[in-house]
Amino acid sequence: MYKKLKITRKKKIGSIPGTLLYTGEKVSAPVKVSLITYNSKDFDEGDITSFDHKKINNKDLVSWININGLHDTEVINKLNTIFPVHPLVLEDVLHVNQRPKMEDFKEYLFVVLKMFQYDVEKEVIKSEQVSFILYPNTLITFQEEAGNFFDGVREHLRRDKGKIRALNADYLMYALIDAIVDNYYLILEQLAEKIELLETEVFANPNKITLKRIHYLKQEIIMLRKSVWPLRDVTSLLYKDETDLVCSDTRFFFRDLYDHTIEVMDIVETYRDLTSALMEMYLSSISNKMNEIMKVLTMISTIFIPLSFFAGVYGMNFKHMPELELVHAYPLVLSFMATIAIVMLIFFKRMKWL
Amino acid sequence: MYKKLKITRKKKIGSIPGTLLYTGEKVSAPVKVSLITYNSKDFDEGDITSFDHKKINNKDLVSWININGLHDTEVINKLNTIFPVHPLVLEDVLHVNQRPKMEDFKEYLFVVLKMFQYDVEKEVIKSEQVSFILYPNTLITFQEEAGNFFDGVREHLRRDKGKIRALNADYLMYALIDAIVDNYYLILEQLAEKIELLETEVFANPNKITLKRIHYLKQEIIMLRKSVWPLRDVTSLLYKDETDLVCSDTRFFFRDLYDHTIEVMDIVETYRDLTSALMEMYLSSISNKMNEIMKVLTMISTIFIPLSFFAGVYGMNFKHMPELELVHAYPLVLSFMATIAIVMLIFFKRMKWL
Amino acid sequence: MYKKLKITRKKKIGSIPGTLLYTGEKVSAPVKVSLITYNSKDFDEGDITSFDHKKINNKDLVSWININGLHDTEVINKLNTIFPVHPLVLEDVLHVNQRPKMEDFKEYLFVVLKMFQYDVEKEVIKSEQVSFILYPNTLITFQEEAGNFFDGVREHLRRDKGKIRALNADYLMYALIDAIVDNYYLILEQLAEKIELLETEVFANPNKITLKRIHYLKQEIIMLRKSVWPLRDVTSLLYKDETDLVCSDTRFFFRDLYDHTIEVMDIVETYRDLTSALMEMYLSSISNKMNEIMKVLTMISTIFIPLSFFAGVYGMNFKHMPELELVHAYPLVLSFMATIAIVMLIFFKRMKWL
Amino acid sequence: MYKKLKITRKKKIGSIPGTLLYTGEKVSAPVKVSLITYNSKDFDEGDITSFDHKKINNKDLVSWININGLHDTEVINKLNTIFPVHPLVLEDVLHVNQRPKMEDFKEYLFVVLKMFQYDVEKEVIKSEQVSFILYPNTLITFQEEAGNFFDGVREHLRRDKGKIRALNADYLMYALIDAIVDNYYLILEQLAEKIELLETEVFANPNKITLKRIHYLKQEIIMLRKSVWPLRDVTSLLYKDETDLVCSDTRFFFRDLYDHTIEVMDIVETYRDLTSALMEMYLSSISNKMNEIMKVLTMISTIFIPLSFFAGVYGMNFKHMPELELVHAYPLVLSFMATIAIVMLIFFKRMKWL
Amino acid sequence: MYKKLKITRKKKIGSIPGTLLYTGEKVSAPVKVSLITYNSKDFDEGDITSFDHKKINNKDLVSWININGLHDTEVINKLNTIFPVHPLVLEDVLHVNQRPKMEDFKEYLFVVLKMFQYDVEKEVIKSEQVSFILYPNTLITFQEEAGNFFDGVREHLRRDKGKIRALNADYLMYALIDAIVDNYYLILEQLAEKIELLETEVFANPNKITLKRIHYLKQEIIMLRKSVWPLRDVTSLLYKDETDLVCSDTRFFFRDLYDHTIEVMDIVETYRDLTSALMEMYLSSISNKMNEIMKVLTMISTIFIPLSFFAGVYGMNFKHMPELELVHAYPLVLSFMATIAIVMLIFFKRMKWL
Repeated sequence: MYKKLKITRKKKIGSIPGTLLYTGEKVSAPVKVSLITYNSKDFDEGDITSFDHKKINNKDLVSWININGLHDTEVINKLNTIFPVHPLVLEDVLHVNQRPKMEDFKEYLFVVLKMFQYDVEKEVIKSEQVSFILYPNTLITFQEEAGNFFDGVREHLRRDKGKIRALNADYLMYALIDAIVDNYYLILEQLAEKIELLETEVFANPNKITLKRIHYLKQEIIMLRKSVWPLRDVTSLLYKDETDLVCSDTRFFFRDLYDHTIEVMDIVETYRDLTSALMEMYLSSISNKMNEIMKVLTMISTIFIPLSFFAGVYGMNFKHMPELELVHAYPLVLSFMATIAIVMLIFFKRMKWL
Repeated sequence: MYKKLKITRKKKIGSIPGTLLYTGEKVSAPVKVSLITYNSKDFDEGDITSFDHKKINNKDLVSWININGLHDTEVINKLNTIFPVHPLVLEDVLHVNQRPKMEDFKEYLFVVLKMFQYDVEKEVIKSEQVSFILYPNTLITFQEEAGNFFDGVREHLRRDKGKIRALNADYLMYALIDAIVDNYYLILEQLAEKIELLETEVFANPNKITLKRIHYLKQEIIMLRKSVWPLRDVTSLLYKDETDLVCSDTRFFFRDLYDHTIEVMDIVETYRDLTSALMEMYLSSISNKMNEIMKVLTMISTIFIPLSFFAGVYGMNFKHMPELELVHAYPLVLSFMATIAIVMLIFFKRMKWL
Repeated sequence: MYKKLKITRKKKIGSIPGTLLYTGEKVSAPVKVSLITYNSKDFDEGDITSFDHKKINNKDLVSWININGLHDTEVINKLNTIFPVHPLVLEDVLHVNQRPKMEDFKEYLFVVLKMFQYDVEKEVIKSEQVSFILYPNTLITFQEEAGNFFDGVREHLRRDKGKIRALNADYLMYALIDAIVDNYYLILEQLAEKIELLETEVFANPNKITLKRIHYLKQEIIMLRKSVWPLRDVTSLLYKDETDLVCSDTRFFFRDLYDHTIEVMDIVETYRDLTSALMEMYLSSISNKMNEIMKVLTMISTIFIPLSFFAGVYGMNFKHMPELELVHAYPLVLSFMATIAIVMLIFFKRMKWL
Repeated sequence: MYKKLKITRKKKIGSIPGTLLYTGEKVSAPVKVSLITYNSKDFDEGDITSFDHKKINNKDLVSWININGLHDTEVINKLNTIFPVHPLVLEDVLHVNQRPKMEDFKEYLFVVLKMFQYDVEKEVIKSEQVSFILYPNTLITFQEEAGNFFDGVREHLRRDKGKIRALNADYLMYALIDAIVDNYYLILEQLAEKIELLETEVFANPNKITLKRIHYLKQEIIMLRKSVWPLRDVTSLLYKDETDLVCSDTRFFFRDLYDHTIEVMDIVETYRDLTSALMEMYLSSISNKMNEIMKVLTMISTIFIPLSFFAGVYGMNFKHMPELELVHAYPLVLSFMATIAIVMLIFFKRMKWL
Repeated sequence: MYKKLKITRKKKIGSIPGTLLYTGEKVSAPVKVSLITYNSKDFDEGDITSFDHKKINNKDLVSWININGLHDTEVINKLNTIFPVHPLVLEDVLHVNQRPKMEDFKEYLFVVLKMFQYDVEKEVIKSEQVSFILYPNTLITFQEEAGNFFDGVREHLRRDKGKIRALNADYLMYALIDAIVDNYYLILEQLAEKIELLETEVFANPNKITLKRIHYLKQEIIMLRKSVWPLRDVTSLLYKDETDLVCSDTRFFFRDLYDHTIEVMDIVETYRDLTSALMEMYLSSISNKMNEIMKVLTMISTIFIPLSFFAGVYGMNFKHMPELELVHAYPLVLSFMATIAIVMLIFFKRMKWL
């Protein structure tokens, strides 16, 4: 029911820098490459198996090459012959535990991001690496698995909704990254729900499972935080005036995106504080409960242990115990005991234990 | 009695950037648009239903258009034909969970802020988004609900108090933002009162409800803090020399406002520390109380359990227990028991338990 | 005996910016204005009721106008006719919950500071706002109440001690601010004494009052910290090369002052850490004490509860209990009980409970 | 089984700066110096005993001098005659507790790093200092002990894999540092495994050993953190444009390395948070366990102590106790006792103790 | 055995800035002034009573004037006639609770540092203020007490070891500061030993004294930290290119010193974390111990309290208790009791209490 935190290896330790080697989980499905070309008038979509130079490099059209699956380095190599990039770029594309980053290689921009998805069944946040290579009118995207994150953008392209087809590849990249960041809000909502649920639980009936849940929540937020922080640098670099590949109009959109990433970070930090508060709350609740238990124990003991002693005294078998012979001794002792009990109860009342 | 923290969705996930879609709570009341035009001599006030170009764009008058309610995108669209702004601006106006920010679009400034109000009945801090679009002599403000925050400023305009009517739209914006920040102090006072109240409670009689209250207070401060931090950037941008829309005289006022926001932040941080100290205090108080309870239990047990044992010994039914026959055995045993009890009490005295 | 933290309102919410309104406690004593004029040869001192333009604005003399009490806005207004300042400056002078700050208005400098005083009787740190307006050879100071902070400086002026009379108004301002910062060290000494006292208490006999004391100490340090932080910015601005009103010779002194404020901040931070350590120490001490109590309870119970059981067994009234008839049964049972007790004690010894 | 943290002395206190004195553990093995010279065509490898000026300073070849062992200052001195460096550089090479750093001496670069290795047997992280001196086409490396960290790079050089032989000494240095940073990931994996293991332990059966383990893990992460932080400055200095010794092509690689060090830091910080969460979890688990224990104690006591009292009452030996004579008294009392027990159990049910 | 933290007064509050007044502990020993003059050929050493202008200001020789003891302001005044410095400098020299700092007065540099010494007997870290005034070829040092910190440097000067005599007064200052920083490592070693010792104690037998020790250690580290932080600024200012008094060759040495101070800071921070971890560990250990105690108490109580009840039942004196008459009742009841005890033990086993 609960996930384990997992830290996978960055790369085959000891390999030469620049080696092409996929480090994610092996998938049997074949790598699928899809190509969408469009401008404000035309639109063409389809899967491709070979990279047709002419088709892709048409200056009048924006090309979007999406590669689903990274385990077939052959495909990557073929692509590299048409779009030659620095060997470290391809290494970063395949080493799927990259820290999100943006690098400007003058002729192209390279962006690595994390995509998060909440797996409702396993109650786990799954992460996937998405890479972007942006040329003046071509965008190449790499996904580990076929996902439906980009379907909304595809639909807009098909139906020419918004102004997306009128603009260039940089706006396409913005639209895709925006779709990713939008998904972060979904994750945050899931976390918010969890926090609220756990809060109710802590107030109503804190137990061992609650503790486990708070712990896992904390862990998730710690791991999420680690992935969200570098995002700020990425979007900040994209909206500031440092590359020609992003035109000034698109910059406005990236600035908006930057605001959203800042907000995501703020929320993650806030959730972190809230979870810490929850843990404190849990500990205090347990202490409170212990206090309640101790009060009961102490009240019972404080009333009955002395009484038992008095009963014990008159249970002694001494020959010469004159009280035992008295006619009213028994009711007197009983009244004495009742008096002790009542005095104790008044004491507890004054101590605010009742 | 206690509020839940609520995190609403930023926008319809998957929508194209720039879509006009109000994300706040739906309100049935119609959107109300009011227009105030003034200069040092003239003053005109009224609700409007259509945007009359001439009336608004009179260069000799300052125009203040206030839009109460954001759920009718028609109104927003109409306004946009006269004051065309970047699509992301209108999106931000309608997506009411924006992080406070200020953006300079050369021809106009765009400012988003949070307004806080303490709902005494529900003991909840309510927040509302307020947006400002500032043109050279026109100010457009957007509120989610009709509120009375701006009534003070309106009154000053009507009665020509202060120099407000002698100055331009930038000073009007300052006066409105100042009214908002003033409200923050009211919220802070409420929090201060709560802290003092809870402190008294923690000292006098800490219980489960106290804990809950401290927890909610902490949560409120965490959420408030998240909204107050970005405010500093907004006012800082407004007082520094980067836009022509704010004249140098008004800058002095914004610098003052900036000082106030810094102070608000300082106070929020201080309250955060105070609440943490309160939580610690609560935990220590509970520990202290537990200690008191344990002392009572231990004293009672330590005195009576050994005594009960001795009583038990002389309650045994052995045939040959010579002590039982002795005449003075009973008073001797009783004295022995009293001695034990006294020794114990002296021991407790020395342990400082009494 | 203990003070409450108090957060007073910044200003009458909703008033127009620039309104002159004193927000401190109303004092019945009349506002007292004193004027000192001096140069290296001449010295004149006296209370004034009207501001004589000629007397004050004598270029050959340094004038120090000290205003004791802020509740009479008439006086402030009169002063303003001779020394016209920005309306926000006077607002800040009267709103006595300002954050310490320094503002350069070219013709004059405006400085707001907090003065602290330890009220030994009430065990409270009292704070008072002091404002300075510095003109080329005139210094105006505003105090809430008549205090004796500045008496030392006045004495030096009278007796021409040091080089104070040979220098200009900027050095006078330095000397006064230095007197204020000196007072901070007195407060810090009080706090240091409190910390040492509480430490002894925590080690010797931690109790409920100790906890309360630590809590209040913590609160005091949190509040003090909030006031001391902005001081650094003020002195830093004064010693750096940005205004003509402070001559380069005086800058050396302000640099020294800056070092002192940094040190005050360091000490406050250190005290904060020490108080946190004290709170931790308290909690640990309480835990330790509880452990001691539990040990006693457990030892007593573990020895006597089993013994009582055995006594109980031989107190049963079964007809056929052959042991009861035996002659040596009683001493044997007693020895058995003693053995159990000794075994228990050895066990406790090995557990290091004794 | 557990390691102790150890802080060795920086240098012989009181020695003159610049003294050559090895501060690591004395090793008896002789210092081994190996020389590899190569270009894209040629490759030569071998151990050397004397430094042959001509062989080393061949401008057409890249020379890599690796010194294994620092305890023989003679070797260092000999080397210094051919490659004269600042006396502080050699001091830093020999004082093996340097903070990682990079210094640019115009003619050569000096880099000090820490190499980490997990000693599986002793469960200890061992650290070793590695120093680099980079000349235009010569790289000198210093290791404390003969290790196999650099074997991978040597192999690549031998087999001319990748482009390593086509490039200069700066790329060689990059490849070696990359090998070191790769090893950090191995350490991090070991720590991740430990964290997961401890987490399972805390959930299943937290005990004293678990606590010790968490404590040591925390200590390891604190010590690791201290070594990893300065690494960022080193790689940052290497990839930024400040020295001619690293060519612009190699800079891309150092930028990649910089990203990796940032990631290592992120992971270390994350582990720190996770370990803190683990400690909190442990404490909460112990509290929970205590609660369980207290519940059992309280339930047993609360049921049986009152019952024992009633049994005690009817065990008293008063002459006149009319109930004792009644025929049904005994079963009635037993039923009464059972009722009390059942009431108690219902109470516990309602308190959610069962 | 344990020291108290002590905060001495900065200066006589209220005195005029620039007053010469020693604020350290009064010492009866007379102030000793020693003069060393040297260049690569000559060396002269001796105590002086009067400042001979010619002897000191010889341009061909480096002069080092060391003043041991600050309580005789006469000496300071005499020195000031030959080396006139800013009055604040002398004030800072005498006020021995200065924050470490470096100030550049063009003609001379002024440096204040803290020297730490571990007093093994009293287990206290003693601190002493050392001030340096550096002229082009003269260095004046001020110590509070005669110490042997500088003996190593003196010895090197005498024997002309290293290149110290070939270089100027700035290198001498470096050598002296280096000697001071070296001493910090000694203090750190003492602290490291204490941490290791306390760790063993916490694991083996945590008690009240352990807690006190951890508390004092924490306090020491907090106080040390306060003194070490400003050191970084001092050495950073010395190695960066801002004064002509330190030549570029010596800068390399100050850069090395800067690295050492950064390392000292890193270690202090690390020790802080380790001590915090120790405190947490202590608290957890105490909780663990309490758990153990509670287990014992609960086991004993849970086994014997119900058994005592059953014994009590058969100790009742009812006339009609048929079981009492049965022949095998007694052994049956005993077996029943044994069964209960065994069931309890199995329960404890399953709860992992045994």
